Amino acid sequence: MLNRTHNPHSARVAQVPAAPRRRPGARGVSPAAPIAARVGSGVHALVRGDDNARLFDYEQRVRSAFDAIVPALKRISALQHEEDFETRAQRVARERLGFELPGWILADAWVEQLDLRRLYAWCVFETYLRFSDDFFSADPLGSAEEAEFQAFLQDCGFHILDISPCADGRLAHVIRYVLRLPYRMVRRKSYAGALFDIEDSLAKWGETELLRFREGTPNTADAPTRYLKAVVYHYSSSAPDTEGCAAHGSDAVRAAEAGCERLLAFQQAVENSYCCGASIDLLLIGLDTDTDAIRLHLPDGAGGIEPGTWVDAAQLYDETRGLPAVEAAERIDARLREAAPEAPAGMLRLLARLLENNLSQIEYVQRHHGGRYPDIGHAERFIGAGKGFEEVQLRNLTYFAYLDTVEEAAPDLDVGVKIFSRLNVGHGLPIPVVVRFDYHGQVPGARERAVAHCRRVAGALAARYPELAGRGLLHSLQLVRDIDAGGVGGRVEVLDCSVREPAQEAH
Amino acid sequence: MLNRTHNPHSARVAQVPAAPRRRPGARGVSPAAPIAARVGSGVHALVRGDDNARLFDYEQRVRSAFDAIVPALKRISALQHEEDFETRAQRVARERLGFELPGWILADAWVEQLDLRRLYAWCVFETYLRFSDDFFSADPLGSAEEAEFQAFLQDCGFHILDISPCADGRLAHVIRYVLRLPYRMVRRKSYAGALFDIEDSLAKWGETELLRFREGTPNTADAPTRYLKAVVYHYSSSAPDTEGCAAHGSDAVRAAEAGCERLLAFQQAVENSYCCGASIDLLLIGLDTDTDAIRLHLPDGAGGIEPGTWVDAAQLYDETRGLPAVEAAERIDARLREAAPEAPAGMLRLLARLLENNLSQIEYVQRHHGGRYPDIGHAERFIGAGKGFEEVQLRNLTYFAYLDTVEEAAPDLDVGVKIFSRLNVGHGLPIPVVVRFDYHGQVPGARERAVAHCRRVAGALAARYPELAGRGLLHSLQLVRDIDAGGVGGRVEVLDCSVREPAQEAH
Repeated sequence: MLNRTHNPHSARVAQVPAAPRRRPGARGVSPAAPIAARVGSGVHALVRGDDNARLFDYEQRVRSAFDAIVPALKRISALQHEEDFETRAQRVARERLGFELPGWILADAWVEQLDLRRLYAWCVFETYLRFSDDFFSADPLGSAEEAEFQAFLQDCGFHILDISPCADGRLAHVIRYVLRLPYRMVRRKSYAGALFDIEDSLAKWGETELLRFREGTPNTADAPTRYLKAVVYHYSSSAPDTEGCAAHGSDAVRAAEAGCERLLAFQQAVENSYCCGASIDLLLIGLDTDTDAIRLHLPDGAGGIEPGTWVDAAQLYDETRGLPAVEAAERIDARLREAAPEAPAGMLRLLARLLENNLSQIEYVQRHHGGRYPDIGHAERFIGAGKGFEEVQLRNLTYFAYLDTVEEAAPDLDVGVKIFSRLNVGHGLPIPVVVRFDYHGQVPGARERAVAHCRRVAGALAARYPELAGRGLLHSLQLVRDIDAGGVGGRVEVLDCSVREPAQEAH
Repeated sequence: MLNRTHNPHSARVAQVPAAPRRRPGARGVSPAAPIAARVGSGVHALVRGDDNARLFDYEQRVRSAFDAIVPALKRISALQHEEDFETRAQRVARERLGFELPGWILADAWVEQLDLRRLYAWCVFETYLRFSDDFFSADPLGSAEEAEFQAFLQDCGFHILDISPCADGRLAHVIRYVLRLPYRMVRRKSYAGALFDIEDSLAKWGETELLRFREGTPNTADAPTRYLKAVVYHYSSSAPDTEGCAAHGSDAVRAAEAGCERLLAFQQAVENSYCCGASIDLLLIGLDTDTDAIRLHLPDGAGGIEPGTWVDAAQLYDETRGLPAVEAAERIDARLREAAPEAPAGMLRLLARLLENNLSQIEYVQRHHGGRYPDIGHAERFIGAGKGFEEVQLRNLTYFAYLDTVEEAAPDLDVGVKIFSRLNVGHGLPIPVVVRFDYHGQVPGARERAVAHCRRVAGALAARYPELAGRGLLHSLQLVRDIDAGGVGGRVEVLDCSVREPAQEAH
């Protein structure tokens, strides 16, 4: 699909959908046998087994496509001095990866040796594009609950749920997997340490109000609902001192307090910037990235949050395991009321739903990942830099660097490059960076500006890491996407890729 | 005032308000004698002589403070090997500039020679700070017409006038001088070539609507008024091929067409992004930067603009000169109605007011600048980079580079550096850059973010022009300002300056 680039010389052939054979074992994904053995033995009455099966199938499909790359390239590397190398290599690629490799990289292998760095970067980008296209064409994570959830949210007293998780790849699945929410109905904007941008959130608050006033979307401005802003910080129960949030020195208390402070600052910003009783409601969520169990910090009577106390979903899972569904739900409600007697009823209903939803994910991790992910540390496959990436709803796939410019995001990018220096460069493999800017196609000139933005950032990236780029250890794929276009039209558009035929580069 | 920096080692003494003796002649400002001779001989009945006198007094006061720097430093340079140099130099500075110089620069002169580059940059920054403080403390360009203008605007059918002039320094006075509007009642956001940012304008449109809905400011959302977006492009009648708009290759037709296209794109963006008949009205203005006469491009019946036809204020000035005020005003109205018979009456009333206002500026340039500015080309004193600069309402004082990051604004900055390479570096003088970010003090943490922003941009600036910075030919002053604070509290705050005592730099 790299041949969707505007570059006419692009050299892709196969259009077969990705259907590689599963190659377990790479990067710590649980081996297949024990998983299969445990599927179907649901033990908690509130857990949705059908949802778990569907989500696991999707996760496995995507993850194994990425995991297949290294073994396939190892096999191809071993063939490189055989006489019919190109034919045999393409056969291996088709069988194991589901697509063919660029002929020009294979064709030059006889002269010196196969350029496996380029080939690796190319395969990661191709696999990403197939995964992304599948997402926007087939809607594999779509939810039938969208309308119901929006109505439920309003019924609880909120017209929007705006969540800022940490940008760490181990939280990328927080909306669709950990909280089991319909991802189109929730705003997600990730930041390092979950320290979201207050000015950006203020602008979003204003946009939301304006739509309520002008268009009655999602409800009219006179409806007594509020804007709910949530932060998701994280920690590691297995290795609290090393695998927690890097932005907060792996200190869970600091991470919770910082999230709480930022939420209160946003609340104050809304109150000070707008008159007539403007305000927002707040929610602080902690996530154990080893088990995907959440902690909900409960609101006090005054609308504040107590960072030091919470209700723990893992504990509730144990406590309600074996109970009939109705009793389990009642127990959860009771625990919430005990913990936050002064919280509004609507807020408690929402929290109860989040806890119940999370029970499914706790069991998901128990069944499919042995109760604790084998990859408790970083194991991302690529860096995603720019704005967009709605399709990334999977854990530990992408290191996010949401950015407008390299200049402003340099600290975040440096962290990402450091992580990938260990994951990839240390093993001789390049860092694949997907540079992406989404735009509103209905705004004249927006595509051209997104294209210019994308090229500028890709250039600035190479300029910031000249040594890596010069040694072929940093590769980038440039994409834009029209978020106003639906379905297949809303797929990403490839602008350029640093893996190109040398002849083209000479131009 | 550089001692308002947070740096405790700062070395300023004098707090005397700027009241330097006038030093004419530098940089092409008209000499004093012919100006004085012509003041008072008003010839056009619609011209406001009192306003002209006040604006000229202010312009002269500010301009002569900047113009005094080079002659004073020349004199001080000539004294540098005298025995009582420091005392004599400070006396010259006090008398001619109204402030003392940093003792540590003077003190080292005997060892090698006086560092005039640093001294020049320091003097420009100090003069700028005095000018800026005066603006925010004494409100020298305040207008008694603010409330009346807002009511008039609404009466004409508009609730906001949002003007994007070209960022060229020769248009910096367009609001308060050329169009004679109360600057606090008009939004000004300058861009190279007047090619304003559509996404930024869309956000402003949304903010404006929200305030109307929520707070009834400036009027309620059900009032049948519109958002009026104006572009001011420019050209030079004396040297059309060289002194027009650099962004459009000094081509007035191209500049007008590009402004028109951008306006229509913004209109379409509003219409496509919002439902319920959302739209805006458009206005295209051309400015002859030699004479300050404007051209108004007239709206057609369908709400569009014709870039090829206009009403010319200079022509109307000649046509109505000598007529009684009422007749002159009627003539202007008649010309507008002839030129745009289908335009709404409210729009025509606004245009008539802009034309009448501009007659005063035409006469201002005739009386005080010989009818045609002696400095028809660039003669800016410093580069203003960042966000803010509300106090800069004077012509050819500041090259604007409105920016968030050097990465995005590099082309604009490169143009500015090229201009100053000719104006300053070619004569051995450094380029003074004021890096400035305004913030909303009522938003928690906003000051800290503005400070970090300012430091990051100052660093990126030095990194982009390492050779100039290394040779002491690029100096920067870092400022932030709380736009929510009124009066003296709303003055700029000095964070840092590249002109510092060497001892401090070692820390």
